[in-house]
Amino acid sequence: MIQASSVAIYGVGLIGGSVALALRAAGYTGEIIGYGRRASELARAVDLGVVDRYGLDAGDVAAQAQLHLVCVPVLAMRQVFDAIASQLKPGDVISDVGSTKQSVIEAARAAFGELPGGFVPAHPIAGTERTGVSAAFDSLYRNRLAILTPTEASTEAAAMEVERLWQACGARTIRMGAAHHDDVLAATSHLPHMLAFALVELLATRPDHDEIFMYAAGGFRDFTRIASSSPDMWRDIALANRGAVAANLDALILRLQDLRSAIACEDADQIESVFRRAKQARDAYVNLTEQTPDP
Amino acid sequence: MIQASSVAIYGVGLIGGSVALALRAAGYTGEIIGYGRRASELARAVDLGVVDRYGLDAGDVAAQAQLHLVCVPVLAMRQVFDAIASQLKPGDVISDVGSTKQSVIEAARAAFGELPGGFVPAHPIAGTERTGVSAAFDSLYRNRLAILTPTEASTEAAAMEVERLWQACGARTIRMGAAHHDDVLAATSHLPHMLAFALVELLATRPDHDEIFMYAAGGFRDFTRIASSSPDMWRDIALANRGAVAANLDALILRLQDLRSAIACEDADQIESVFRRAKQARDAYVNLTEQTPDP
Repeated sequence: MIQASSVAIYGVGLIGGSVALALRAAGYTGEIIGYGRRASELARAVDLGVVDRYGLDAGDVAAQAQLHLVCVPVLAMRQVFDAIASQLKPGDVISDVGSTKQSVIEAARAAFGELPGGFVPAHPIAGTERTGVSAAFDSLYRNRLAILTPTEASTEAAAMEVERLWQACGARTIRMGAAHHDDVLAATSHLPHMLAFALVELLATRPDHDEIFMYAAGGFRDFTRIASSSPDMWRDIALANRGAVAANLDALILRLQDLRSAIACEDADQIESVFRRAKQARDAYVNLTEQTPDP
Repeated sequence: MIQASSVAIYGVGLIGGSVALALRAAGYTGEIIGYGRRASELARAVDLGVVDRYGLDAGDVAAQAQLHLVCVPVLAMRQVFDAIASQLKPGDVISDVGSTKQSVIEAARAAFGELPGGFVPAHPIAGTERTGVSAAFDSLYRNRLAILTPTEASTEAAAMEVERLWQACGARTIRMGAAHHDDVLAATSHLPHMLAFALVELLATRPDHDEIFMYAAGGFRDFTRIASSSPDMWRDIALANRGAVAANLDALILRLQDLRSAIACEDADQIESVFRRAKQARDAYVNLTEQTPDP
């Protein structure tokens, strides 16, 4: 269990709320304080037993906590870092849950002047398409992966506290460089989200969109699930990781153009070999995930 | 229930096998005869209670049945139509389950000389990423939609028998023109499959593909489920509906290029408006499907 006797959650939605619930479920007895901009949502978080109390001033909240977890959209993190910078105490541990890591580190450097030893960026690979504190649940991170991307300034003590946090939530932890994280996630998470959003938006703007959706098959529901994700959050991710996202979009557009040519030229072998490699890789991926319990 | 006293299923895999099981579950007491190319798979279908018996000669099988349901990949239908053409009897009803309808009608016209009155093409919008008769189950079509695309030669009597077939399987039926079907399905089904195959193949051919898949989130599994579909079947669909599939790929590639530009130019409003329209459409679609029982 974490050593901090009090935790501040900045941004109490699905992600931050689920951390709070998971800590409680794991037996954490310290105080959990929420920060946000909307008092109504925070009052709801208290009613739901997600946080013990809340504050609307990030600096005030920061002064009362030892472990600080920033769970706002990635481009809003700078603002939170700015607000808490002057209230951090020696030994405080600061982490975040952002889906992009280089941009968060830049924001922290700008806000804190130099990167604090206690700052260990992280990214739990979990989430649903739902949003808000009402969607939070204590098992969101169970058997998921939390990637830590310590900076050159991070202390080992702080990194271990962040590992304890995610392990208490049921996640496995791993460490990698922020740049590598951003490249890998652009391919496996950011690119699929861009595709799902673009596809659904294409269909939604057809003149016959009502009919289109009426005839969509079951597979369509799964395929487009991530297009129900938060537009704000994903706008921020697309911008914060724009280099890697654009590069991955370019690579995919080339593949789609090749596939389109193969279809137009009736190159059956080429089409089938693309589909077959994809099926093999996807089946292997599913076998891999099924080897871990409760995937 | 259907009026035919015997049914021939040409191609006893997930789709054809599930029709047979659904007919039985609905109380059909006539004979169900399977046709296929591999005796081992057909013997398995008999063992599993999916069909009563089987034949390896499509013409022989056709001579013994009144309702003929062709469930082979769309580009293999011509061959089956050729083989059964001379064995059809007056009053026989012929249908299929192909995901593209204009190509099937062309194949029938070529094989039968002129389109038989008993021929009513159809497409049940259902399926899973699994294949083979072992994957068949009797509720695959329950609360699903079966689209009939009668030709100008189809008799009303035959169309009603095909409707009874799908209604006995638990599906709702609807009729529309074959060209309209192919256009709508290109957008809602064929395009998403092309995207899923292309994305997974892109990732699978990266040098770091093992690591890539290791860090894929839960959403990735849903998003790529359809990339585990049958490469043969989907190669055929891409080719059989190549005009509409290519046009939809072109439209999507343009959207992806626009989105890529918006990301590279940091046009936050444009990015967010795409994502927001997509989320609204997808949420509305889910609400729509949740209004029908057991979606």
